[in-house]
Amino acid sequence: MEKKILLTHCKDAPGLISKITNICYKHQLNIIHNNEFVDNTSGHFFMRTELHGYFNDKILLDELDQALPQGVSRQLVGPNQKRIVIMVTKEAHCLGDILMKSYDGSLNVDIAAVVSNYDTLKGLTEKFDIPYHCVSHIGLDREEHEAKMLEIIDMYNADYLVLAKYMRVLTPTFVEKYHHKIINIHHSFLPAFIGAKPYQQAYDRGVKIIGATAHFVTNDLDEGPIIKQDVIPVDHNFNAQDMSQAGRDVEKNVLSKALNKVINDHVFVFRNKTVIL
Amino acid sequence: MEKKILLTHCKDAPGLISKITNICYKHQLNIIHNNEFVDNTSGHFFMRTELHGYFNDKILLDELDQALPQGVSRQLVGPNQKRIVIMVTKEAHCLGDILMKSYDGSLNVDIAAVVSNYDTLKGLTEKFDIPYHCVSHIGLDREEHEAKMLEIIDMYNADYLVLAKYMRVLTPTFVEKYHHKIINIHHSFLPAFIGAKPYQQAYDRGVKIIGATAHFVTNDLDEGPIIKQDVIPVDHNFNAQDMSQAGRDVEKNVLSKALNKVINDHVFVFRNKTVIL
Amino acid sequence: MEKKILLTHCKDAPGLISKITNICYKHQLNIIHNNEFVDNTSGHFFMRTELHGYFNDKILLDELDQALPQGVSRQLVGPNQKRIVIMVTKEAHCLGDILMKSYDGSLNVDIAAVVSNYDTLKGLTEKFDIPYHCVSHIGLDREEHEAKMLEIIDMYNADYLVLAKYMRVLTPTFVEKYHHKIINIHHSFLPAFIGAKPYQQAYDRGVKIIGATAHFVTNDLDEGPIIKQDVIPVDHNFNAQDMSQAGRDVEKNVLSKALNKVINDHVFVFRNKTVIL
Amino acid sequence: MEKKILLTHCKDAPGLISKITNICYKHQLNIIHNNEFVDNTSGHFFMRTELHGYFNDKILLDELDQALPQGVSRQLVGPNQKRIVIMVTKEAHCLGDILMKSYDGSLNVDIAAVVSNYDTLKGLTEKFDIPYHCVSHIGLDREEHEAKMLEIIDMYNADYLVLAKYMRVLTPTFVEKYHHKIINIHHSFLPAFIGAKPYQQAYDRGVKIIGATAHFVTNDLDEGPIIKQDVIPVDHNFNAQDMSQAGRDVEKNVLSKALNKVINDHVFVFRNKTVIL
Repeated sequence: MEKKILLTHCKDAPGLISKITNICYKHQLNIIHNNEFVDNTSGHFFMRTELHGYFNDKILLDELDQALPQGVSRQLVGPNQKRIVIMVTKEAHCLGDILMKSYDGSLNVDIAAVVSNYDTLKGLTEKFDIPYHCVSHIGLDREEHEAKMLEIIDMYNADYLVLAKYMRVLTPTFVEKYHHKIINIHHSFLPAFIGAKPYQQAYDRGVKIIGATAHFVTNDLDEGPIIKQDVIPVDHNFNAQDMSQAGRDVEKNVLSKALNKVINDHVFVFRNKTVIL
Repeated sequence: MEKKILLTHCKDAPGLISKITNICYKHQLNIIHNNEFVDNTSGHFFMRTELHGYFNDKILLDELDQALPQGVSRQLVGPNQKRIVIMVTKEAHCLGDILMKSYDGSLNVDIAAVVSNYDTLKGLTEKFDIPYHCVSHIGLDREEHEAKMLEIIDMYNADYLVLAKYMRVLTPTFVEKYHHKIINIHHSFLPAFIGAKPYQQAYDRGVKIIGATAHFVTNDLDEGPIIKQDVIPVDHNFNAQDMSQAGRDVEKNVLSKALNKVINDHVFVFRNKTVIL
Repeated sequence: MEKKILLTHCKDAPGLISKITNICYKHQLNIIHNNEFVDNTSGHFFMRTELHGYFNDKILLDELDQALPQGVSRQLVGPNQKRIVIMVTKEAHCLGDILMKSYDGSLNVDIAAVVSNYDTLKGLTEKFDIPYHCVSHIGLDREEHEAKMLEIIDMYNADYLVLAKYMRVLTPTFVEKYHHKIINIHHSFLPAFIGAKPYQQAYDRGVKIIGATAHFVTNDLDEGPIIKQDVIPVDHNFNAQDMSQAGRDVEKNVLSKALNKVINDHVFVFRNKTVIL
Repeated sequence: MEKKILLTHCKDAPGLISKITNICYKHQLNIIHNNEFVDNTSGHFFMRTELHGYFNDKILLDELDQALPQGVSRQLVGPNQKRIVIMVTKEAHCLGDILMKSYDGSLNVDIAAVVSNYDTLKGLTEKFDIPYHCVSHIGLDREEHEAKMLEIIDMYNADYLVLAKYMRVLTPTFVEKYHHKIINIHHSFLPAFIGAKPYQQAYDRGVKIIGATAHFVTNDLDEGPIIKQDVIPVDHNFNAQDMSQAGRDVEKNVLSKALNKVINDHVFVFRNKTVIL
């Protein structure tokens, strides 16, 4: 007996839940959890079904294809641990939290490697027996640097790339290659404070909350589908540096919560938004 | 075409979602929202299905009864506005919030009457053209007082009684009569600070958060099924009275959110807990 | 014996707390609360001192002027209730919350009048025996409309104008006249979603939090000094209208908390920020 | 030039702020931050003053003793890093967070050693080059075990002991020895769910929030002065184990925030409460 997750996304139509659950029932698969959502604005249907039983994947998927509207996207995902490569620059807190959570079992993920343009976090990474690759950007143009990074990253055949405070903007070539597979943590409650130095921007504006946003990376800077956001209160006592310090906990919490949803197959990306079931 | 909500609760068994949604599909009822939950600890299944179409209630329910395990509880709820009677003592904020939300359409409820042991809130209630009944408890024992209260309350044939800071404990007789139909707001994050003067208890203990709990009333004081809880931070600057003042917003927000869930048929009561779908 | 609040703001210099509290001590004024803040970036000093005793205002302020750096701003504020005029368009929740909080004593404020470009909220306002003035903007250009509004507003000699979902942009003439005396509630966590229809913008962007911002109005739309912000979580289930409905509670809570700080003389405005002591 | 913190606590009396800041001013000490609190219920005065300049500690303290009421508690604390010993059982998340925050500079603390009754966390601790002592309790009575623990702990001359999910109750002898020097994280929003298995208790009660409490340890189990509390929402989908997993982040955040306040000398303990300035 196995546990698998069936992810279904198609145009809405009458009887979808009935048809899908019927097929599962006929296959004697037990539904452990079922979550569905119909986006009435766009007329799209999303369903995440946790199943338990003996699977005949091909027959199951064929029957679904026949029963569901044309153009259905359906996927049967096994319980395999996802493999990630983490990209960082110099800050330790997001990387450290993922390392710790993987270490103590809070995050069911295989960290294949950490890649950076600095060697600052080599020591921390290697404490956890994970390969660390430093590819300095000095003397390289953006394309050359990315090509060298990708040479390493591609090697690991990762399911997702996690930008855990990687402070360089990626080129369209890079982003295309890992379409909807790159998760970034931005240190503001987007769409406020897009771009560089969001804490300085927040300080200058005099906001009373600061936050963090985990999102998939697209070619539009800080405009990709948002997975998770959270905020903390600040006040006049906080200068930009205090905000940056206080923001560390919310950044790492938001990133690891987003990652947890993604690697456990709860997240659909639809247009420029996420549906999290 | 009508909108109705099907609430199903039974022992878990294979194929329940499939069976229920099949029957709906055969009746050409469109599922707008569907939420289900299986409590694996107890082996119970709960489902809330928002349906749209032409209903033949009797046939639909008969078919469900045949398809589902024995002892199923299923209910088809129409879109009728729920009718409530509000019980208060002297504090205005919870009553005021419900009156305002009913007035501006945020809360889809018919406030049949307000009943109190004081006349303090008569003026406020009558601003909104709602009958106010004052039944003083002075000179009466608890049973006599409640009997007089019930004489009035029963008259209104309410779906729910809302204790919006009604500061007297109800007798088992009263509670039995409105079994799982009485919603209370308690001014602490239960189970902390059961009983009288929770803010004074919170101050004495030196807690750094205070809160409020909306729950169904049972015979065990402050022990009924919890519907909604929330908290706010406090610190050493707050004495018991400051806490009481600061707590007003969280009390009223928690109560009106709980009420909103209940009157829109999102809440199952199972044993001493709620399942909110 | 009286209670007054001394508000001091000047360039930072050695010994300020000592000098100010010495003068208070010499006047036999007891300090109930004292809060100070030094903005190290700008080198400015802010202090709010709650005093109790017999006041000789003129001598006290003269001695402070002599002791403190040139250009000091100091103010001795009595315990008088502040007078406000509320401006609204059609939405009831923010107005309703202020009316209720004034009614039950949670907000110590004298609501002199409500002014609107529609008569929608006349009924609600008059329930609380407060004058309501409807000045329709139909057929008038912006300046003409504001002139007619101001004719009424000026009459009430208000300490503050509260824009409780007043949906028109004010001209510089209007804003100048009530410099740092106009408090607005904007239905987003500024600086995200400036301008019209912030909930629609939030929905289109797919954010996972929505919020509200209370700020002083300046000539730059939605750019004035922020007093208070708060947020609530949302998800894919919320369309723009659901967000708007869910946002009501956070809007009204943020506005009434901001107003409470302002009318109790906790708020300094400095450049484009607030210091709240 | 040095930075020191003056902590003053005494019975309230007229002119205290004036007297203390005068003496600092005479010593040409610049006040960077000043926070004071008067507990009107008990008539006690608390002040935390961050000073910068050349210090003559003895003269300064003597002058304060003369100026202030009898029985004053005043302390001049240098900028030295505090030294802690961490006690753990088997769970990694709280220990891991403190190790990471110390490593990346978020928490300015010297972790002298980790002491446990199991060797589970030896590997993690030693990654960060910190001594780990395992003192098994097997075959020992409580007093014998604690005596062996204390032999090691005492050796490190720690300012504070941090119980980062140390799951054994300490004897009065142990607690007395480190009076107000032991910080514990309890995995509930105290006073709810005192004692063992708070997440199971929370699950059984059906609460809609769970939380964590950092407090000083006293002889009354889970009754010591509370430093910090926070909560997260849960619902019917969480069984006791899910709550325990979800609670990890709030536990570690609450503990490290409390620790940060304590080691930076923001926390006064007064009777059974904390005043945090």
